[in-house]
Amino acid sequence: MSFTPEKMAPLKACRLGIDTHHEPTLYLRADSPICRSEGFESLSRILVNCQGRHIIASLNMVSSDLLEPDQAGFSESAWQRLELHANAEVWLSHPRPVQSLSYVRAKVYGHELDALQLQSIVNDIVEGRYADVHLAAFITACGDDALSDSEITALTDAMVKAGSRIDWGLEQVIDKHCVGGLPGNRTTPIVVSILTACGLTVPKTSSRAITSPAGTADTMETLTDVSLTLEQMRRVVRDQGGCLAWGGSVRLSPADDLLIQVERALDIDSEGQLIASVLSKKLAAGATHVLIDIPVGPSAKVRSQAAADRLARSFKVVASNLGLELDVLMTDGSQPVGRGIGPALEARDILAVLKNKPDAPTDLRERAILIAGAMLDMVGAAESGQGQARAREVLDSGAAWDKFHAICDAQGGLRVPPVAPYRYALVAPHACTVMGVDNRQLAKIAKLAGAPADPAAGIELHVKIGDRVEQYQPLLTIHAENAGELNYAVDYLTDHKLVLTLSDEACETTP
Amino acid sequence: MSFTPEKMAPLKACRLGIDTHHEPTLYLRADSPICRSEGFESLSRILVNCQGRHIIASLNMVSSDLLEPDQAGFSESAWQRLELHANAEVWLSHPRPVQSLSYVRAKVYGHELDALQLQSIVNDIVEGRYADVHLAAFITACGDDALSDSEITALTDAMVKAGSRIDWGLEQVIDKHCVGGLPGNRTTPIVVSILTACGLTVPKTSSRAITSPAGTADTMETLTDVSLTLEQMRRVVRDQGGCLAWGGSVRLSPADDLLIQVERALDIDSEGQLIASVLSKKLAAGATHVLIDIPVGPSAKVRSQAAADRLARSFKVVASNLGLELDVLMTDGSQPVGRGIGPALEARDILAVLKNKPDAPTDLRERAILIAGAMLDMVGAAESGQGQARAREVLDSGAAWDKFHAICDAQGGLRVPPVAPYRYALVAPHACTVMGVDNRQLAKIAKLAGAPADPAAGIELHVKIGDRVEQYQPLLTIHAENAGELNYAVDYLTDHKLVLTLSDEACETTP
Repeated sequence: MSFTPEKMAPLKACRLGIDTHHEPTLYLRADSPICRSEGFESLSRILVNCQGRHIIASLNMVSSDLLEPDQAGFSESAWQRLELHANAEVWLSHPRPVQSLSYVRAKVYGHELDALQLQSIVNDIVEGRYADVHLAAFITACGDDALSDSEITALTDAMVKAGSRIDWGLEQVIDKHCVGGLPGNRTTPIVVSILTACGLTVPKTSSRAITSPAGTADTMETLTDVSLTLEQMRRVVRDQGGCLAWGGSVRLSPADDLLIQVERALDIDSEGQLIASVLSKKLAAGATHVLIDIPVGPSAKVRSQAAADRLARSFKVVASNLGLELDVLMTDGSQPVGRGIGPALEARDILAVLKNKPDAPTDLRERAILIAGAMLDMVGAAESGQGQARAREVLDSGAAWDKFHAICDAQGGLRVPPVAPYRYALVAPHACTVMGVDNRQLAKIAKLAGAPADPAAGIELHVKIGDRVEQYQPLLTIHAENAGELNYAVDYLTDHKLVLTLSDEACETTP
Repeated sequence: MSFTPEKMAPLKACRLGIDTHHEPTLYLRADSPICRSEGFESLSRILVNCQGRHIIASLNMVSSDLLEPDQAGFSESAWQRLELHANAEVWLSHPRPVQSLSYVRAKVYGHELDALQLQSIVNDIVEGRYADVHLAAFITACGDDALSDSEITALTDAMVKAGSRIDWGLEQVIDKHCVGGLPGNRTTPIVVSILTACGLTVPKTSSRAITSPAGTADTMETLTDVSLTLEQMRRVVRDQGGCLAWGGSVRLSPADDLLIQVERALDIDSEGQLIASVLSKKLAAGATHVLIDIPVGPSAKVRSQAAADRLARSFKVVASNLGLELDVLMTDGSQPVGRGIGPALEARDILAVLKNKPDAPTDLRERAILIAGAMLDMVGAAESGQGQARAREVLDSGAAWDKFHAICDAQGGLRVPPVAPYRYALVAPHACTVMGVDNRQLAKIAKLAGAPADPAAGIELHVKIGDRVEQYQPLLTIHAENAGELNYAVDYLTDHKLVLTLSDEACETTP
């Protein structure tokens, strides 16, 4: 039992204007009576009540005049979640011990968790009872295939139940997901445009980047509004058949949004949590049919055919347990798809493909057609095996571009992606052939340059594996929004030359 | 490569007086030119340089008038570690990416780490390059026996090398450690007094509590100063043959001190990290002979003989790899030892045993004699098998008490432990026999009452397994330094009656 608020005098809320990101923080004077009477210390977890709303916040003690003894200071996230106003009366108390942390510990020690235990973990996460270190422990404990298929099923189901779920009242609602690890490869906006132009319903919600330089939501945000409310999303889908929204703003699987923040800091996302993350979002968004794209390559997220087969099998088992139709498509993951890596640079590639521009990246165009074709085949929207032909036709005719434009207009208008003012070009030291591309190093450099937080930042890759280049021909260009991050990315590139493998000798002179 | 400070203008240091505990935090105005030019965002990790000292801090953005645009605000831990003064010029830059985090990820994915990789993790931890979520991931990844004996050996060695190491120039320097899980059981001060009274060298450094209501350092701190410098410790050991100091103040295995902070928040300490933590402290403190006490019981840390055997084997292998003589003693872990649970309450038991008071807890006295005897046997300081007899003699004669008093005097004087003003007694609901004690629930309640941060807080346990009690006879008393925490502990006790198992029926009337 936690305290009833009546036992203590309230404090006056004070907005300190400190941004602690998603972890709500409370500030109290160390010499305030409440700290003595309640035994609060720095980093204690405190239950804060105000007019029927409550959060659990981490406490930072203040020994200066920043606050009066009867004031409680709040970080921005705490202020907003409690919907406070200056001098609002707030009550502080000890939260109940978080029972579900014992299940996290059980998982660390290798025990199988049941559905109730996983639901309890997910509910406590959504209610803000987990500090970041607890989220980090849960994520790590679930790493390296530590979750069985039935645990992944239960975790997925728990994540769906902890948020909103959309019912479209339709027999077929289709969706796709790429497990990633391949920079660029921004097929989703093209695929959604093709499928909706074919009359299918594709209410696409995408995430922001977890460990990559851009997620589809980051890229789409450089082209239109993606922070749609559920009502706005319903209207866009009703009018256009599809949308390209950010999943985080519609509270679909909110546990996933919290876990992803810490996964990003750790640069870890495990197979079990990957599947639960993806499928919980799809189920919550009301999808009935889902295509999973798994790029396979030596420096992609999935590095071998065996690993891809294992992941595909788990995806299918969990989807089937939860009544979802799911197909898997394995694709070439040996190098980036398209030229741009980073939100705005990828947006530029998408526009070029949709507008059928002569310099549009062929590999991105073909990858989008492959995926859209498989999805048309999957739901029977094309004669068997004719999906790709149908997709190509819709793209070539300009119908996909018209549909994309219409969706962006419905979401608030088509925008021009920003352009980065700071650039650095890496040129070939000698004439040679490009032998290999390290996807991970490319992603790292694009992130160091500022992507995805700086939308114009990233990398423009000018070559593909097998390309022959002359001496001083540009291989890639780093884009940044400020000099500091450009220098930072260039320093890293200078230290990690193997981002591109070039043949040693100058190649033969072209005849 | 990180930036050279010359590339940026310095900011002026401002002490905000915010206690963020061990994680150093930097505060900057969101609209300051440096945030734009460097692309800093909330929770970015920032390298802060000032007059040759540097730290890595987490950034919180400030959107209020707390700071001027040319000021950099600092938390207390950051301010102290940089030894700042008001308006000192500080330079900010991006730190190098933390390479060793890729080894933590490799461990999550089940890979064996080599000595260089573990040294690199430990060095980065000691240099403050890990945020708390990274420490949490490393701790969790090492959970559930994830470390092999050779990894534990390498981790231990790395932890020793990352701090100071004391060389006493003696052939025999002895030490002990109890793996814990048993509330109370504060034998160390008694054992050290007996052994030093026998003329042995026992430079004891102890930790504060990790997940328990008190560590030996917490308990000793209620009796004398434990924050000794290395020079003070050398002097006390030279004059008295032994000391009872806190290990954290002499920078022995400083990585351990940082890991323990997060282990406490997670309530996880894994077998591998337990061994590395214990042996790194012993090796750094210059020990040559170590006795490990493993209490075994259904609610102790080690619950079965098989688990105790496994742990003992790992301890012996790792010690032998590192050239340390090590014996293991398995002891009864079915219930607390002594009456007090919590720093001051345990100190009271220790004084009673050392002073041979008639009401001194017999179980604590006998446990201390058992351990001291085994250590005397181990180093050949008693005729074979006569260790216990010798220990008993030294205790009975008052020589151990004199030695304890002398050590405390040398450390700054013997103090009287504090007494808690708030108490709650749990009484027997009916006449009955005590059938069992849940060590974990007892520890939990003592912690909720405020231990170890509030030294007088904890539990006084009035009964042992097998005791027969009358109706309304007190079973235990909760002690607290404030009403809030007392109520909190009582609420929990009320919800968890099984802390003591009592026989159902009233027991027979004593004839």
